[in-house]
Amino acid sequence: MADKLTPRAEDYSKWYNELVVTADLADHSSVRGCMVIKPYGYAIWEKMRDALDKMFKDTGHVNAYFPLFVPKSFLEKEEGHAEGFAKECAVVTHHRLKVDPNEKGKLIVDPDSQLEEELIVRPTSEAIIWNTYKGWIQSYRDLPLLINQWANVVRWEMRTRLFLRTTEFLWQEGHTAHATAAEAIEETKKMLEVYAHFAEQFMAMPVIKGSKTENERFAGALDTMCIEALMQDGKALQAGTSHFLGQNFAKAFDVKFASKEGQLDYVWATSWGVSTRLMGALIMTHSDDKGLRLPPKLAPIQVVIVPIYKGEEQLQQIVAHMKPVADALRAKGISVKIDDDDTKRSGWKFAEYELKGVPVRLAIGPKDMENGTIEIARRDTSEKTTIPQAGLVEHVEQLLEDIQTNLLQQAVSYRDSHITRVDSYEEFKDQLKTKGGFFFAHWDGTKETEELIKTETKATIRCMPYDMPSEEGVCMVTGKPSKQRVLFAVAY
Amino acid sequence: MADKLTPRAEDYSKWYNELVVTADLADHSSVRGCMVIKPYGYAIWEKMRDALDKMFKDTGHVNAYFPLFVPKSFLEKEEGHAEGFAKECAVVTHHRLKVDPNEKGKLIVDPDSQLEEELIVRPTSEAIIWNTYKGWIQSYRDLPLLINQWANVVRWEMRTRLFLRTTEFLWQEGHTAHATAAEAIEETKKMLEVYAHFAEQFMAMPVIKGSKTENERFAGALDTMCIEALMQDGKALQAGTSHFLGQNFAKAFDVKFASKEGQLDYVWATSWGVSTRLMGALIMTHSDDKGLRLPPKLAPIQVVIVPIYKGEEQLQQIVAHMKPVADALRAKGISVKIDDDDTKRSGWKFAEYELKGVPVRLAIGPKDMENGTIEIARRDTSEKTTIPQAGLVEHVEQLLEDIQTNLLQQAVSYRDSHITRVDSYEEFKDQLKTKGGFFFAHWDGTKETEELIKTETKATIRCMPYDMPSEEGVCMVTGKPSKQRVLFAVAY
Repeated sequence: MADKLTPRAEDYSKWYNELVVTADLADHSSVRGCMVIKPYGYAIWEKMRDALDKMFKDTGHVNAYFPLFVPKSFLEKEEGHAEGFAKECAVVTHHRLKVDPNEKGKLIVDPDSQLEEELIVRPTSEAIIWNTYKGWIQSYRDLPLLINQWANVVRWEMRTRLFLRTTEFLWQEGHTAHATAAEAIEETKKMLEVYAHFAEQFMAMPVIKGSKTENERFAGALDTMCIEALMQDGKALQAGTSHFLGQNFAKAFDVKFASKEGQLDYVWATSWGVSTRLMGALIMTHSDDKGLRLPPKLAPIQVVIVPIYKGEEQLQQIVAHMKPVADALRAKGISVKIDDDDTKRSGWKFAEYELKGVPVRLAIGPKDMENGTIEIARRDTSEKTTIPQAGLVEHVEQLLEDIQTNLLQQAVSYRDSHITRVDSYEEFKDQLKTKGGFFFAHWDGTKETEELIKTETKATIRCMPYDMPSEEGVCMVTGKPSKQRVLFAVAY
Repeated sequence: MADKLTPRAEDYSKWYNELVVTADLADHSSVRGCMVIKPYGYAIWEKMRDALDKMFKDTGHVNAYFPLFVPKSFLEKEEGHAEGFAKECAVVTHHRLKVDPNEKGKLIVDPDSQLEEELIVRPTSEAIIWNTYKGWIQSYRDLPLLINQWANVVRWEMRTRLFLRTTEFLWQEGHTAHATAAEAIEETKKMLEVYAHFAEQFMAMPVIKGSKTENERFAGALDTMCIEALMQDGKALQAGTSHFLGQNFAKAFDVKFASKEGQLDYVWATSWGVSTRLMGALIMTHSDDKGLRLPPKLAPIQVVIVPIYKGEEQLQQIVAHMKPVADALRAKGISVKIDDDDTKRSGWKFAEYELKGVPVRLAIGPKDMENGTIEIARRDTSEKTTIPQAGLVEHVEQLLEDIQTNLLQQAVSYRDSHITRVDSYEEFKDQLKTKGGFFFAHWDGTKETEELIKTETKATIRCMPYDMPSEEGVCMVTGKPSKQRVLFAVAY
């Protein structure tokens, strides 16, 4: 770690970009808008993926894999979907390169290899999957079909930011088929709960659950449910969505099933997804000016042991002493690194592991060896204490739990202190500028008012939240009646 | 399972295609040459992936993720590589679709969205990765760089077969960078050993290790090491490759490092990969006319329990009785399914689980309940015995190990009985036609002879095997001197 990060207060966006790169999470690639996910970043993503994958399987889903390419004509089939997704995308038009006859060593597209029908690199897989489901679903016995896919997708974004908006990103997409609307809606809700649970229990990131307005819905959905999180700069981030698709895709791809009674009906659908965008949410929920703060459940290294020593012999003694401790921690499922790199000073290492967000740091020198003590530092609070080595394993185990809990509590308390209830549009605009965050306000339910607010303030309706009492009121802009406050924020 | 499979003896190729589809492993998609990997097939692939991933990590590698797209100019940089890979590939030329002004509801490629430089969907990632490594490697301290990627790749294949050769497939590709040639060669060998170990210990598939001839090398490699397996129809299948790339890619992408002594030198490289092709190898190594035979270590369901009953009450009794048994098996890490589906007859279920290759089937009826017995059937030998329920867990545990061992032994004995040493070209051609399999024969080391044999017999040199004593002889075709027999076969 060479230079310090730009402080968040000075330039949050710059801090974020610097942190992502210097903490070895991701980097820009030479391909426009595409990122390289570096090993440390990928290790966090793997932990997210594994935790989510287990939750999907525990709720009865199975994984499968569908083609990367979607024929253009498939995208045309569902009108709303085509409008939403068939715009900025990567289009494959040819299938061969050949040597340039005019310039040695250069390649050109072989004009003879033009495809009869263009292929789109999937921006999402509803079209290709529902085209496949047509062959898999005949009767009620084939339902429900509960399938998830881990995959890369491409959306040709004009302005990109590492993890938050990239041309290619990694995600999972669940695509389920059901016999009834009620069952599909229940599935949509269930997966939203899975996402909310994951965000809170693994990412230590509180979220607000709700439905999108018609305007903000997924292209082709009847209802888009979402979880919305609040970042440290007062902007909202949509962290996951779960869509009730009605019979739109079944109709577009003619997927019918014979009911128990022998009647033919269109199948009901859901889809739901989270992506590497969650990495951005994780970073912007917890990290500070010194670097990442990772929740222990997602930290690739949960505990680092740094020997403090003079000379090779002392280093070897300390390392030999700590190896059984590391093994005992590993036996508890805790990931431990002993940093015995002799080319780096301990001060450098301390800064490096702070940057990398390692939750617990143990430092041990010759005096500790004599006294049977060890210094333990927690990344979340920066507290350092010297404790006896006896009982260390249990202490660390407990501390990791405490850090996980504390990070969530800190995030909740930040979030809660940045939820403002406003009743006038003036107050809304004023508070949005000075304080930022989430706003609960009344809205008349029209697209016109929603767009007006967006144009004038950049704030959008993040969701119509579920866990709020209904409350009569009047729209802060038009004064027309409203039955519930909705959640506004400026969003990533 | 409706119809029986075409017997292998009748039409091996047809048997394979039917089995892949009816056992729910994969299916053709509507996208030319691309497959859909169905949930049951994907569950096997996940087990392969997890086992390999652990072996990669245990040997010091980390995962990362690089862009799907390779700019055309990157492919031009390494000449041999360009010749090998920049031919049949998916070429992205545009980034936008728009509504067809002449036909409502149709989409056309927006001609204004043409890319300045075409992007190739990665057929392999050497080019994009070495372009990235340029920014990551400055000094010997940055080496070795031991990175693996799990990804999808696309090669525009003209003739495709499920798993064996598809336009898009899933794979892992390791890309490592080293300070010395010796270290890179050691890594190349180490990963070949990992692949061989995986093939034998997990897939129960014996392999022959060796180096490819110059003719068959990976485009851009100095040495391509491979593992070659023998399928039941006497054809060889290349199951994994590990390449020593020398300094070719470092030179093409200008990747230099400062040594301890401060000298600048090009980095040494390896790459190595296995793909969903292994699914084809697994199927064609073990399966029979009744369906799959899966090695227990890769079986998504290791044990199925089928209740034999009359009426709902008996079914419930048996299921209630077997649940604790299933839990006890699960506690040992064994995956168990109790099939309590009342809409299927037990005969149907028996055939279905045979088709799916479930290693152990337990069947239990009212008489067994009375007698404290249970019927246990193993998929590999089709043996059925009735045993006491007492000690069942230990029995099953041992049986799964036995099945794993037996499948390997069967495959070894088939393979060994299909290795023929030949000394005359006539004998070679004759035996190739009548018996097939692997052939050890002398070869004069020239490309001309290699190609002649290929043209006349379709057999290729699979590898120059490592684990064979050197033996002086003369080429079976030209009579010129030879120092070692090489491995010939007709290959997938």
